[in-house]
Amino acid sequence: MSRPAPADVRTVACIGAGTIGGGWAAYFLARGYRVVAWDPAADGAPRLRHLVQQAWPALTDLGLAEGASIDNLEVEPGLAAACAQADFVQESAPEVIDLKRTLLAEIDAATPADVVISSSTSGFAMSEMQDRCAHPERTVVGHPFNPPYLIPLVEVVGGRATSPDAVAWASDFYRHAGKSVITMDHEVPGFIANRLQEALWREALHMVAAGEATVEQIDLSITDGPGLRWPVQGPMLTFHLAGGQGGMAHMLDHFGPSLQSPWTRLVAAELTPELRDAVVEGCEREAGSRTIDDLVAERDRGVIAVLRALGRA
Amino acid sequence: MSRPAPADVRTVACIGAGTIGGGWAAYFLARGYRVVAWDPAADGAPRLRHLVQQAWPALTDLGLAEGASIDNLEVEPGLAAACAQADFVQESAPEVIDLKRTLLAEIDAATPADVVISSSTSGFAMSEMQDRCAHPERTVVGHPFNPPYLIPLVEVVGGRATSPDAVAWASDFYRHAGKSVITMDHEVPGFIANRLQEALWREALHMVAAGEATVEQIDLSITDGPGLRWPVQGPMLTFHLAGGQGGMAHMLDHFGPSLQSPWTRLVAAELTPELRDAVVEGCEREAGSRTIDDLVAERDRGVIAVLRALGRA
Repeated sequence: MSRPAPADVRTVACIGAGTIGGGWAAYFLARGYRVVAWDPAADGAPRLRHLVQQAWPALTDLGLAEGASIDNLEVEPGLAAACAQADFVQESAPEVIDLKRTLLAEIDAATPADVVISSSTSGFAMSEMQDRCAHPERTVVGHPFNPPYLIPLVEVVGGRATSPDAVAWASDFYRHAGKSVITMDHEVPGFIANRLQEALWREALHMVAAGEATVEQIDLSITDGPGLRWPVQGPMLTFHLAGGQGGMAHMLDHFGPSLQSPWTRLVAAELTPELRDAVVEGCEREAGSRTIDDLVAERDRGVIAVLRALGRA
Repeated sequence: MSRPAPADVRTVACIGAGTIGGGWAAYFLARGYRVVAWDPAADGAPRLRHLVQQAWPALTDLGLAEGASIDNLEVEPGLAAACAQADFVQESAPEVIDLKRTLLAEIDAATPADVVISSSTSGFAMSEMQDRCAHPERTVVGHPFNPPYLIPLVEVVGGRATSPDAVAWASDFYRHAGKSVITMDHEVPGFIANRLQEALWREALHMVAAGEATVEQIDLSITDGPGLRWPVQGPMLTFHLAGGQGGMAHMLDHFGPSLQSPWTRLVAAELTPELRDAVVEGCEREAGSRTIDDLVAERDRGVIAVLRALGRA
């Protein structure tokens, strides 16, 4: 078996050197990996080196892994040569489905059997992309957020032909490499975070289109408003606290009807008893032994730290 | 004229002492104001004092204004007595339209003529609430975010009968009191930030209802994903950078069609040339003299500061 243990990965192939692929390359270099990269563009190599150099001060500031160096980056002239050396492949090609399907088949053919191939796709399901691969069982989605060298989240999910082992291996590997991983047990278009930010983004476009807010007002409303809470507590815990001591249960039982207000263009979910209970129980599970007061204190410490860190306290 | 200059406000009346009203009281006390509060509940006074005490360590940590003290809080047994002393009134009653309409009329009758009365409502338009007031021209919405003692944003907007002077005065006063103010020139249901976070929240409920994500996955996807960028750069600038050197123009011209992907339940705005130009020009205006590289460097510094502040670097 040619698949190394997640902790034994040494060489990562980064296929595609745009903003995301370059960001991944910088991240893996900073974590001490050797990176072999390939991009079909004539200026792919210099562009990749620019992206890595742009990210490097930030990564140095955060602390490099032992042995980490920009010198561990090699740009290969051929896709096959890059993949042949890989203990793990991160594909970050443009979001064009036919391109992805063809490219994944080429990567699959060139990569040692069993080595996991992960796609950065932000919207396609692996089931749509893996069908031309001879070994689709080792192909997964590993969806990062821009910039991949700073934002911890990676959403991992397999396709119909992916083996659960490959999904588990990729999740372990990303965690070992310092990422925060959400492993999804089935494919959802847009995964999780993208659907959420996409809903916000679509609403923002509607507001600009309707003359309800300017671009600047939209950004200020987030950076100086709910955006300050979101690195600390997600939208669910945020509303758990908006309900006061009664938490999410109070929130849903009392403000649930206002969900039907025509505030956004998105039709609200029907607040069935089952949904109500699932949300309340989820918040309670997430809170664990922390009381509402504990969570309020945590949020306050977090928001203060964020305000101070940004020089706005 | 009984309306003081924004800088001369000494006494703020906080009407309603729930999570939001209590948070406002704590904030105004920390900024050195005298606060007279009123709440109809039998346990209103002790609950308010609990809320203020809970917020006080955070506010002390951030730095109190000269003379600021919890001792400057007085809880009045009657609404009229509280309003009679006020240089400014912040109403934070429950979100029930008839209650708000009646309460605002009572506040209006008890408050010195010309003193601005501001409602914390998160969803109602002032035009719906001010109709029973004898002096509706001094009623505005001043919509805060939870917790009002930490989150800077206040959205200010008047109703049909509100005078532009009152809107300008309230905006100046909140700024003087240390808030980040968005002054809206017309009423939009849910204002700006609420519509945006409401879109995200509705999508989250849909995902839970459909079994696509758990409450914990939704929160983690935001706290460890896009939520880390949002205190630094709002959703528009975020996508301006997702487009690489081409910025928002590249983003819309190349990824615009994928807006039509069925990622969320929210129907996408039609990307007309006018909308495309409004968004691109808005981003360029917001960026000002900063290049894409400048913005990337700013974002990276900000995200690193946030990660470090939260002990996650």
